[in-house]
This record gives sequence, C-alpha cells and structure tokens, in this order.
Amino acid sequence: SIRARMLISCPDKAGIVAAVSQFLYEQGANIVQSDQYTMDPEGGMFFMRIEFDLQELESRLPSLQEDFNRISDRFSMRWSIFRAARRKRIAIFVSKEDHCLVELLWQWQAGDLDAEISMVISNHNDMRGLVESFGIPYHHIPVTAETKAEAEQKQRELTSGKIDLIVLARYMQIVSPKFIEQYHNRIINIHHSFLPAFVGGKPYQQAYNRGVKLIGATAHYVTEELDGGPIIEQDVQRVSHRDNVNELKRMGRHIERIVLARAVKWHVEDRLLVYQNKTVAFV
Amino acid sequence: SIRARMLISCPDKAGIVAAVSQFLYEQGANIVQSDQYTMDPEGGMFFMRIEFDLQELESRLPSLQEDFNRISDRFSMRWSIFRAARRKRIAIFVSKEDHCLVELLWQWQAGDLDAEISMVISNHNDMRGLVESFGIPYHHIPVTAETKAEAEQKQRELTSGKIDLIVLARYMQIVSPKFIEQYHNRIINIHHSFLPAFVGGKPYQQAYNRGVKLIGATAHYVTEELDGGPIIEQDVQRVSHRDNVNELKRMGRHIERIVLARAVKWHVEDRLLVYQNKTVAFV
Amino acid sequence: SIRARMLISCPDKAGIVAAVSQFLYEQGANIVQSDQYTMDPEGGMFFMRIEFDLQELESRLPSLQEDFNRISDRFSMRWSIFRAARRKRIAIFVSKEDHCLVELLWQWQAGDLDAEISMVISNHNDMRGLVESFGIPYHHIPVTAETKAEAEQKQRELTSGKIDLIVLARYMQIVSPKFIEQYHNRIINIHHSFLPAFVGGKPYQQAYNRGVKLIGATAHYVTEELDGGPIIEQDVQRVSHRDNVNELKRMGRHIERIVLARAVKWHVEDRLLVYQNKTVAFV
Amino acid sequence: SIRARMLISCPDKAGIVAAVSQFLYEQGANIVQSDQYTMDPEGGMFFMRIEFDLQELESRLPSLQEDFNRISDRFSMRWSIFRAARRKRIAIFVSKEDHCLVELLWQWQAGDLDAEISMVISNHNDMRGLVESFGIPYHHIPVTAETKAEAEQKQRELTSGKIDLIVLARYMQIVSPKFIEQYHNRIINIHHSFLPAFVGGKPYQQAYNRGVKLIGATAHYVTEELDGGPIIEQDVQRVSHRDNVNELKRMGRHIERIVLARAVKWHVEDRLLVYQNKTVAFV
Repeated sequence: SIRARMLISCPDKAGIVAAVSQFLYEQGANIVQSDQYTMDPEGGMFFMRIEFDLQELESRLPSLQEDFNRISDRFSMRWSIFRAARRKRIAIFVSKEDHCLVELLWQWQAGDLDAEISMVISNHNDMRGLVESFGIPYHHIPVTAETKAEAEQKQRELTSGKIDLIVLARYMQIVSPKFIEQYHNRIINIHHSFLPAFVGGKPYQQAYNRGVKLIGATAHYVTEELDGGPIIEQDVQRVSHRDNVNELKRMGRHIERIVLARAVKWHVEDRLLVYQNKTVAFV
Repeated sequence: SIRARMLISCPDKAGIVAAVSQFLYEQGANIVQSDQYTMDPEGGMFFMRIEFDLQELESRLPSLQEDFNRISDRFSMRWSIFRAARRKRIAIFVSKEDHCLVELLWQWQAGDLDAEISMVISNHNDMRGLVESFGIPYHHIPVTAETKAEAEQKQRELTSGKIDLIVLARYMQIVSPKFIEQYHNRIINIHHSFLPAFVGGKPYQQAYNRGVKLIGATAHYVTEELDGGPIIEQDVQRVSHRDNVNELKRMGRHIERIVLARAVKWHVEDRLLVYQNKTVAFV
Repeated sequence: SIRARMLISCPDKAGIVAAVSQFLYEQGANIVQSDQYTMDPEGGMFFMRIEFDLQELESRLPSLQEDFNRISDRFSMRWSIFRAARRKRIAIFVSKEDHCLVELLWQWQAGDLDAEISMVISNHNDMRGLVESFGIPYHHIPVTAETKAEAEQKQRELTSGKIDLIVLARYMQIVSPKFIEQYHNRIINIHHSFLPAFVGGKPYQQAYNRGVKLIGATAHYVTEELDGGPIIEQDVQRVSHRDNVNELKRMGRHIERIVLARAVKWHVEDRLLVYQNKTVAFV
Repeated sequence: SIRARMLISCPDKAGIVAAVSQFLYEQGANIVQSDQYTMDPEGGMFFMRIEFDLQELESRLPSLQEDFNRISDRFSMRWSIFRAARRKRIAIFVSKEDHCLVELLWQWQAGDLDAEISMVISNHNDMRGLVESFGIPYHHIPVTAETKAEAEQKQRELTSGKIDLIVLARYMQIVSPKFIEQYHNRIINIHHSFLPAFVGGKPYQQAYNRGVKLIGATAHYVTEELDGGPIIEQDVQRVSHRDNVNELKRMGRHIERIVLARAVKWHVEDRLLVYQNKTVAFV
C-alpha cells in the first residue's frame, strides 16, 4: 500500500497548510484527504490530519520524515506519520460481559475494523472458546485484591512492545496509574453512561433512579481520573418509564458496542488527537 | 366537546382495568385511548390514563365523579378527571432569551398546543412587543436581591387561582420553596443540559470544558432541589470539537425549545404522572 | 410460566375494553400490560394487545378460549391467545451476507430474542460452521433457475408444521406466491433501503446515484408485491457525499441488522397486527 | 470584515492543495478552515472550500482574484470567492403554510442566519402582517392559470439583480423552466417527504397509505425535474400507526422547518457545491 496518514498539532500561524502541502507535493505525495481545525485563528492551537498516497512509500518514508523536520521546527509541530498498511495491534481486555468483544470481533472479521486483534486478556476464562474460534490468542489472568500487582505485571509482559492499543471492552477492573502512563492515550474504555452523568459503578441503576429519558454510552481514553479521560464518542437511546434496570442494561448493550466500535475504528485510522483532556476527532 | 381524560394511580391488584372500564361503560362512556403501566404485578404501583367520550359530558361529569368513589375506594386510588375542552391556563416566565417563548407562542398559534397562554411574566421588559402582538398580557416584574420577596408576591397575585401551569422558559431566577409548594408538579423548567450532567449555571461552558460529543436539554418539574425534579423529557444533538461555547449555545437553543414544547404539550394533555421523583409519561 | 398474550381486532364499539377486562378478571387473570388503538371512534377498527398472568395457565387456557367465544361473537372479533412460554420457532433464510444472521444469533444467545431458532436454510454452504457452532441445524439447499421449484419443495418439507416464522436475513432469492401464502404475515424480510424509496435491486447504488443524505433499512412482511408488504420497522443513518457505494453498504449493514432484529423481536413477542397492508405495532 | 470563502472544483491532480494554499499564503491570507473532497484520487473530481482571513480584504480582493487565474488555469478549476461581509440576499416565496417562513424569520432575527431577507413574495396576502412586523417588504402576487406568466414576470422584475437566493418555503406553485434557469442552483425548495419516496403531491397522505414508520423532509435545489434536483439536506422523525394524516402533517412541519433552515444556512455560508445532480456539502 502507498497510503499514509499524518497527524499534526501546533500553535496556529499563517502558512502551515501551504508549507505542509507544498512539502508533500515536492516529495511526490498526492493528498487524498485533509482535515484541519483551528481553535482560534489568533494564537490558538492548530490540528491537522492528512491522508496521502506516495509511491514506494516504505522505502521513501524515512527520508520524508527526516526532511519534514525543517517544517516541523519552523512551526513547533508535534506530528506523526502512520503507514495505513501497518495495522495497529490491539489487545482487548474483557471480563464477563461479551457484547462489546463480540462486536469488535465481528466488525474485524467483516473487514470493517482495519487492525490486528493480537490477543484477548480476561480475568475470567468464560470467553476462551469464542475468542479462539476467531484464531485469536486468549490469556486468562485472574485478578484478586492480593494478585492485582502480579496480574498487571503479566499483562504488561504480554503487551509490552507488541501492542499499540488497549481496549477495555467492559473490563471490570481498575488499571493502575503505571499501566495508564505506559499506554498514554492508547487505552480506550467504554463507560455505560452518558458521561459525565453517572460516573462510577452501576450507571444503569443510577439512570433508573434518576428517571432519565435517554440512556447513553461513552468511549474515552483512560486517564488516572475515573471516567474522566478525553471523550472520543458518545451516543444515546430513548427509554421510558416502562424500562426497568434490566431493560436499560439490555438496551444499553447495543449502544455500548456501537459506541466502542466507532471509537476503536477512529483510533486505528489515526483520526484522533488529544489536547487538554479533549479529543479532536477527524471523522 | 365530549372528550375527557382520566389519570389514576394506585397499588396494583387484579381487576382494576375491569372495574374502571366496566364503570365507564355503564356510564355510557366510550374509551378512545387507554394506557397503563405496572411497576411490578406483585405489589407494585399501577398507573393508568384513559381518554373517553361521553355525551353531555359537562352535565353528567359531577355524578360520574361522585359514583367513581366506590371504585377508587375499593382500590385506594388517587385519580383525576379532566375535560379536554377545559384548556389549561399557562403563565410563561421568561428573562432575556426568547427562543423557548417564541416556540411556545408559535406552536400555540399553530394550534399544536391545546392550552390557553394567559400571561407572560418577565423580570425584563424586552419581550413586551412580541408577546402583546399575540394578544397576550405581559407583566414586567423586575427582580433584584432586595425586591425578590415582593416580586414573588406580585407573581403570586397575578397567577393564584388563574393559572394551572407555570412554564419557566429560560427564566433565570430561582423560585422560592413556597412558590414551588403552591404549584406542586405544576412548574416546568427547561434546563440547558442533559441532566444530571451539568447541574447549575453555565451548562454549555461545562459541556465545552468536558469535551462531550452530544449536548442536551432537559424539561423537568421544579422541586426544591436545584435541577433535581422529575424529568419529563430530554433530547440531545451531536456536536464536535469544532463547536465553541457560542456554537453550543446556538445549537442548544433548538433542542431546548423542542424539548420544552413537548413537555408542556404532554402536561396540558394530561399525559404525565409523577411518582417518587420520576414521571410516568403516557406519550 | 403463567404469562399469556392476547391480540384482538374488531370494529370499534363501546364496551370492548370493559368486556375483555371483565372477562379476564372473572377468569382469575391479572392484566400486566394492555395497549389499544382505535382508528376512529366512529366506526373504525379497534386493535388490542393484552398481557396477562393466569395461574395454571396451561390447563386453564382451553376453557378460557372456549369461554371467550361469547365475547368475540358479540364484538365480531378476530383474536388469538399465545402462551409466552411457547416460544416461536424460527427458520432463518440466508445467502452470502452474514451480518443479519449473526445479529439474530447473537441476540438470541444473549437472551434478548425470546424464540427458538430451529434451523438456518441457505442457498450456499458458507455459513455452516458459524451456524452449527451455535448448535443450530444448517440446511444447504442450492437454488438455480432450473431447481427453484424443487428447492422450495425441500424448504417446505423442512419447515411445514415445524416453523412459526420465516426470517429472510438478506436471502437473495424471490420466494414463490405459494410459499408466501402458506406463511401469510409470517415471513419477515429486511430490505436495504428506506422503503418505498429504492425498491428492487441494488438499493445502495440507487441511493448513491440519487445523492440522498440518509440511508435506511426496512423490515416488512413479505407479500406478493416485491418490497411492497406491510412495514414493521425502519431506521436511517446519516451519510455524506464522501461515502461511496461500498461505504454506504458498510454503514447500511449496521442499520439492517438492528432493524431486522427489532422486527423479529416484536413478532415473536406478539406485538404486531396487520391490517390493510399496514402494521399496528404495540411496542 | 476580513473573512472570505473560496469554493473550487476541478479534476483531481497532485499539487492542488499545495498550489492553492501557497498562493493564499503569498497573498498574506491566513487559512482558517479548509475542507476538501476527492471523488477518486485516480482521475476523479476534486472539491475544496477554504475560509481565509485577509487584511484589507475589500481593496485587495480584485488583484487576488486576478492573480488566482494562473492557478485556476493550471488545474482547470471552476472557482468563486465570496466575502463573508457581503451577505446573500434572499427572497422567500410562500403560500399559506407559515411554519417554514416563521422559522427562517426567527433564525434570521436571532442572528443564526447570516443573510439578508430582502423580500417575501406570496400568491396570498395572509402573511403580510407577520412579514412586515419584521420590517421586510411583502409582495402579494396572485397566481391563477391565466395570470401565471404575468405573475412570474412580476416576480422576475422584483428579484432580478437584487436577489442571490430564492427559497420556496412551502410555495405551492410550479416555477417555470425559464425562472429555474435564471436562478440555476440558487432556488431551494423544501419537499415534505424523504425523497425520492413520495414525489409530487400529498406526500403525507402517501406516507400514511404506505404505513411508513418514519416521515421525512428534503431540501433540494430546484431543477426542471419535479422533486428531482440535487438534495441538500434530509431528516426524519419516527411515527407510529397511531398517527393519522393530520398528525403526520403536524409532526412533519417541525422537520420541514429544521431541514429547510439548515439548507439555507449552508447555502448562504457557501458550503454547497453541485456536481452531477448531487451536492457536496462542506458542513
């Protein structure tokens, strides 16, 4: 494949688009898609995502990246280039609820999720059969209060250097600050409420108690603050007084899986930038 | 008109529907629409809304209500009957934002809101021309920290015995517990967020800061707890990182007016029952 | 289980609700949910769905049904009673697209679809492994222009008397009028457009050509008129000029599976009545 | 104001973005927003919208436009530049239904519609009071079969050279091919269905007869083919078997006004390009 994607963020200034597009043109690249966002033309931040095609991409990319330093230095850019053919490697963490996992597996199998699902890690053994039927390794790492540190050590060994993205697909364990730091903005969690409403445990019970008329789900990057990380995607579903907590859970499963799948798709397609605990989502 | 509506709530028990419908049949009424909801067939609460037609309704209603006591006693019912022709009288309270007011006036003029808008009360004089052009009395009652009690006294004099429903259409003043008590479950407020997220002031600023991907609005009955009363209706609108606070406000205005108008419509059509800080909405 | 569901349709007339609910009460049944719809109080049709609980349902149901004849005769009713415990038996017909099938299997396994998936019939062999992994029999019945009649004969043998509902989950063959007649209002098809727009083949290509801004899917009962049967459920998804036909197909798959699953769920829960090529959906 | 917008379409080719952005940079312009769309990187069409700020815009724009010819010639571009401060002048055509008109007037008054509503033309006199209360000239031009040509002549005299956009806000008359040609891609109509379903008259009646579960509205540019022009925006609303034709009309009014207002807003903000009977909508 000759397709690559570029993500850039820097303070806004006249001439950025011209410099970047002129650079790519001189390198022989053809811009296929380009999105940009300026927080404020007067001194705000500037964000950009470019998809481009370049013949002999693999061999020419190193020098292109080298050459781009003169542009990035001029504009104080933070930037990355990703080859589309280098699919991101995902580890899915799961506990006992399977709906989010199943959706990801299925979209992946249908070719809708352009990534590699490298492994599934669970604190239970329930989904081994399902996961292995997709040809994906399944690692059962039980977690108790006593073994938490040890379990995380095992998780780290399995994933370090082999995984680009961790997806918490209804994984009912808190991950440690150390782990979060290692995968900074590379752990996506699905929370089963419309955040910031109903942070923490039992959000459907909370939603039922409050009598809301819509329930929601939120996919977000994990930070140290519980359910407080940058929001990637949210969606909602209408409910009524007739729906008890179990019915809310049932309806919620459908939103959770759709919302999580979208967020993962956007991440692996390099559509997300994080700035000040918010996401810029070029979707 | 021969149309009436009946709202009933009582502990659930076998035979309620039979007793009520048999009673209405014997009275000569024809059931046109009927909704019911059982929280739990084993000892939960039962709620019912019936629309029926009865010839010579006005003259026969008193004896029908009298006779219904034997049914309501048997099932320990709380109940009310409303004549559809007796349109509810609304006082709209408003400050400086006009979009919710305009929507209500316009739906009312289009015949979509089957009620009487008896007066508009405002702590500003800005919308007098607009309101009076609809032939509706406009009362300017300024409110300051010093005159708050006095202002509310004036509001009470204007509305007492003349008003069935108070609508706070972006009225930026807190109403007193005493006033709330007088209009128990008869004051509807529009809050410009998806409650319980972003309680209190500046919800769009809060939403922007949190980086949510949907903004919402909530219509609820007013109780003493700020933004904590029974939710009647909610809706949301997709937003993106591109939308600044002003854009959120602009988009939010459209949701606010739709959500508030729906809630008011349901109230005046006797579609709402309140139980344990939640609404049963037969819509 | 003691739960039963009753579906009634008849010309509207005063006293129906009273008669039915009084009857059920006398039989010892407790009404748990009841919905009704009157096309027109003056001489229109009346439709009703009642859920009720009755102790010793199975043994008492025959006499209840017998006794109900005096009510149904009085009001010229068409009616049915279904025991909730008697789960409907489904045959899913599928060709090469698996997304609708997978959704049904998965909702069924999750307990969201209260039915029995008795068999899957396909004109291809591709999904045998998937289906059999759920413990469901898979019948491969190839269909060509020459073998069409013979193939349908086999389908009829497999299903006759053993199946309550046929679901065409992207089955790319026309079923014969004879087959349709045998399963009158018991064959559900998913059409991949917002009917009546884009009847017939290649609806996503048609949608792309027309430049619509929303794509949709429609679940309907199959009648002799192609894509012309009673609509059960529809939904849509926003698209843009950026989405080519393949992208429309990809997005469409998600709507198709959700819409079909809803329609099947409503059918097996006895929530659907058909009248004059339209559905009354008590949902 | 220093803000301008540029719309470009041309065959795709490497270097377009670079050439345009480099050109603007050299002219001293700062790109604030830029969107692009490539139908196919291999020989498809390329579309671009750029918002930029340029000091002393008014005096420098003529030479900038002059200079841009060397770029546009190189890439065979069709292009336009619009000053944001030069608000588009709208003539709204209306008959007896006022909801779309009212929404436009109200959004305009609220500052959400950055345009000039120069006049309202109607074949009835009903809305004179409303329109004139906004300070907008109202022209009553009756239309009968006999006076049709003459009426259109009057419309043309009123609008020629003074109007940039015609909005048919539920104007129940067919406009002539000659008129359409004069305002090529500058007449927006609201059709009260989800096109291409229910082309022509009485779409709500058609929708009711077909038993659809969603109703919709479509804003499109007017071409000679009835309801066949490029679609700008569509939206839908859930309905049920309970909603009769009048109720569909009532609910539909809310979708119609929202959809039309969005389309008009996008047009006046220069967000729409038409290509092969479809719109590219940079929104």
